[in-house]
Amino acid sequence: MVQDRHPEMNGAESLVRTLIACGVDTCFSNPGTSEMHFVAALDRVPGMRSVLALFEGVATGAADGYWRMAGKPACTLLHLGPGLGNGLSNLHNAKKAGSGIVNIVGEHAETHRQLDAPLMSDIEGIARPVSQWVHRSETAAAVGADAARAVQTARTAPGQVATLILPSDTAWTTGGRVAGPLTPPEPPVPDQDLVDQAAALLRGGEALLLLGSGALTAENLETAGRIAAATGCALMSEWSNARLERGAGRVAVDKVPYPIDAAIEVLARFRRIVLVGARAPIGFFAYPGKPAVLTRPDAEILPLADASDDVTAALGALRDAVGAHASAVVNGLRPEADVSGPLEPGGIAAVLAQEIPEGGIVVDESITTGRAFFPATHGARPHTWLNNCGGSIGYGLPVAVGAAVACPGRKVLALIGDGSAMYTVQALWTMAREGLSVITVIFANRSYRILRGELDNVGAGNPGPRALDMLSLDRPHLDWVQMARSMGVEAARVEDCAALARAIRNGMDADGPTLIEAVM
Amino acid sequence: MVQDRHPEMNGAESLVRTLIACGVDTCFSNPGTSEMHFVAALDRVPGMRSVLALFEGVATGAADGYWRMAGKPACTLLHLGPGLGNGLSNLHNAKKAGSGIVNIVGEHAETHRQLDAPLMSDIEGIARPVSQWVHRSETAAAVGADAARAVQTARTAPGQVATLILPSDTAWTTGGRVAGPLTPPEPPVPDQDLVDQAAALLRGGEALLLLGSGALTAENLETAGRIAAATGCALMSEWSNARLERGAGRVAVDKVPYPIDAAIEVLARFRRIVLVGARAPIGFFAYPGKPAVLTRPDAEILPLADASDDVTAALGALRDAVGAHASAVVNGLRPEADVSGPLEPGGIAAVLAQEIPEGGIVVDESITTGRAFFPATHGARPHTWLNNCGGSIGYGLPVAVGAAVACPGRKVLALIGDGSAMYTVQALWTMAREGLSVITVIFANRSYRILRGELDNVGAGNPGPRALDMLSLDRPHLDWVQMARSMGVEAARVEDCAALARAIRNGMDADGPTLIEAVM
Repeated sequence: MVQDRHPEMNGAESLVRTLIACGVDTCFSNPGTSEMHFVAALDRVPGMRSVLALFEGVATGAADGYWRMAGKPACTLLHLGPGLGNGLSNLHNAKKAGSGIVNIVGEHAETHRQLDAPLMSDIEGIARPVSQWVHRSETAAAVGADAARAVQTARTAPGQVATLILPSDTAWTTGGRVAGPLTPPEPPVPDQDLVDQAAALLRGGEALLLLGSGALTAENLETAGRIAAATGCALMSEWSNARLERGAGRVAVDKVPYPIDAAIEVLARFRRIVLVGARAPIGFFAYPGKPAVLTRPDAEILPLADASDDVTAALGALRDAVGAHASAVVNGLRPEADVSGPLEPGGIAAVLAQEIPEGGIVVDESITTGRAFFPATHGARPHTWLNNCGGSIGYGLPVAVGAAVACPGRKVLALIGDGSAMYTVQALWTMAREGLSVITVIFANRSYRILRGELDNVGAGNPGPRALDMLSLDRPHLDWVQMARSMGVEAARVEDCAALARAIRNGMDADGPTLIEAVM
Repeated sequence: MVQDRHPEMNGAESLVRTLIACGVDTCFSNPGTSEMHFVAALDRVPGMRSVLALFEGVATGAADGYWRMAGKPACTLLHLGPGLGNGLSNLHNAKKAGSGIVNIVGEHAETHRQLDAPLMSDIEGIARPVSQWVHRSETAAAVGADAARAVQTARTAPGQVATLILPSDTAWTTGGRVAGPLTPPEPPVPDQDLVDQAAALLRGGEALLLLGSGALTAENLETAGRIAAATGCALMSEWSNARLERGAGRVAVDKVPYPIDAAIEVLARFRRIVLVGARAPIGFFAYPGKPAVLTRPDAEILPLADASDDVTAALGALRDAVGAHASAVVNGLRPEADVSGPLEPGGIAAVLAQEIPEGGIVVDESITTGRAFFPATHGARPHTWLNNCGGSIGYGLPVAVGAAVACPGRKVLALIGDGSAMYTVQALWTMAREGLSVITVIFANRSYRILRGELDNVGAGNPGPRALDMLSLDRPHLDWVQMARSMGVEAARVEDCAALARAIRNGMDADGPTLIEAVM
């Protein structure tokens, strides 16, 4: 649908205008020479907020967090193949989370690609493993329509990564045409037969309704809670969720645990499992002598709706099929309590249960320290919880940036292991630059603690000093207070639970970002 | 060539033993669960130095710097597709520089890949754009021979990126076999006919011998200097060189300038150009209305030897063909001088000319600030100069790590723009951990200064405030002293040339790494 044509408008300007016309009004940027026409167009076209990142992994992770909280895509602006490469691991995470993102990747002019210039690379090849859609705009006249298709793809359920390659001559040549929005396809609704089978399964006893993706909104959880009340089935979510609404007044769901032995034990209770927005539980890694499929061998598993289906309709149909008129059981508000004592996972969890604010957004990359947080915070004030769905660490600080940009009225609490935080530590600067309401808590155990357990799990035996050295971050230790301040973020170091609670409350009162180093 | 077979040895251990047997004794690592058997093998097998990085771009850039200075490959240890992705841009730079690297990328077990686990991705697809060779070891018995081929590929002239994918079941299964080294193919030597044509061209007047890659060793420069003395041709190098030996007592070569107008002007002098280890000069980017090929239209260009040929033999044959018996002209030692005044490019260049130590290794990612450095330092003490050949910034600090690991007896001087330094700032921690002799100078102009010029070059017009905001790093400014100290590196801030000179001398006396923030 071509809305507008300006012979004097260049391709870059038609791109910016099309993105805005399609509802994309936020760009997480790390531009270079080949993107200068896009950057210049920002001054001629009102309506695009451009947020600068000092590293592309911050930009792509921020676009992921933005989608999760805004429910619409942002774009990224990346510098040729290497810039896309720097953003690759957080695009991997976003793709696994079902987040919609439009990547704009600058490229050499056609005449220059033949010369194999230093920055020349196979951009399509780099993009394809982390994108559902990759396209190169070869003419200024085409770029508007291409961008509209990119946004349509990004908005296709559950959300997809669309990468549009923009050669610099396409950007600077005139003849750009602005395109209007294209409607994404409707997500499929499950057949009534399948719904009836699922209802029968849940009524059969030893049953689990396993939820993921769009099934975890407050409204869908309420529906799931009614189904559970009517059938006696248990409710759980996948171990990692792109976005989960929880806290007091909401339906509680536990997660399938990450440690493989615990997951197998929990899932052994269930002979009948219905999947809505979730996948059948598998181990995060393969371990010698342990199963990859975590459910019991005789479990009957019915996929009612996957993440790309209409999970709201699926849950509604299931509720109707089981005749769920009873109320759902919801979490009560936890009693007020003062928490003191040393910083260990249980105490920290108790602090969080007290301090998570109403409407808070928790970005959880706390890895080993955080395994205790989830059960303890069911009764916190109503809040949103975001997990890493792709397993590549370094997702948390960037996602916090994007969530805060998407929701300026809400506080973001980023819970990050020290190892994870270092991958994309440049995100702190963007938080300071944009004055974002993010409280970052760094759990400084000064090691890749999770790998100590994993060495055992994979049967790698008793580690010697050289192996342990590869898992240790204490030589030298990282000074997170200086790290934060070096990028303009105020920071404090805490060594017990009472000080952690005070520091979080101070962060709530601050206008911009703060960081807390919790020394474990 | 199978040397050894241990039925009880697992694939990971056979891999470590094979790498060591093939001369690879240094590993830049950022491991995860799927790499734990390799990590565990480090304790059972002596002889592999494993250097931990907190981000994979540090590991891959360090392997690049190591190759350039050690002349043999290191390996990297990376965690599945996303870990490789984080290392992608510095592998791009390494590939363009002709550096040999062996990447070991962990992967899920075969049974687990079918389940599409969170960290599952198309590793081959991610690897291919930055690797000359990609291979997956499917059995423990094969991994040794595969690793020997990977090292052979890495050592193939001028140096190549070889990526070996190691599924975790291959790593943990017994039956590993250690393989011995394979000889890389001999690099081709140019035909005598071509040598004679090149000799005639250089004798024809208005001639340039353009050098790159392996032509820039001290010995080959000496040969080139004799050729210049005999023929009257000029000597230049490409604008960016993987490794160049220079300073007092060595043959001087200027570089083709980076700014396109300056490059065209310099090259307009030459009607006859012979290439040895170099490529014909092209613009770094395409600019509207400017040529991509920088030489004059009537220039006759003869490629005598490219980077994968035997450039030493090519230069020797050319010397014999022109009958070069005269001595080469070499640089004199610059006179002692005290430098004072404000920190501007010329003054900083004069400081460097004084302070570069004998045998120093200069890693140059100084971008705009550094354009004045090269001509001013021809007469510094003999030293080595490393450039970024792939154009993806964030190469400098990691390459400095690798150069320092390769050459423990030499001082590394890393000259880095503030924008560039932020991409891979985690390298500072590895410098501290390993006690590396690196002096990092950060040129804090608090902007992506180069892009201000590029906005003009691409004709993007007079930038407005929103465009300029995307090129500015001063809101907030980065505090490099706190940044360095947060990772265990001692640091100082300087604001004039005399203070810069003192700080460099202090760094020379220090045992470990230091950082100097040069506020521009």
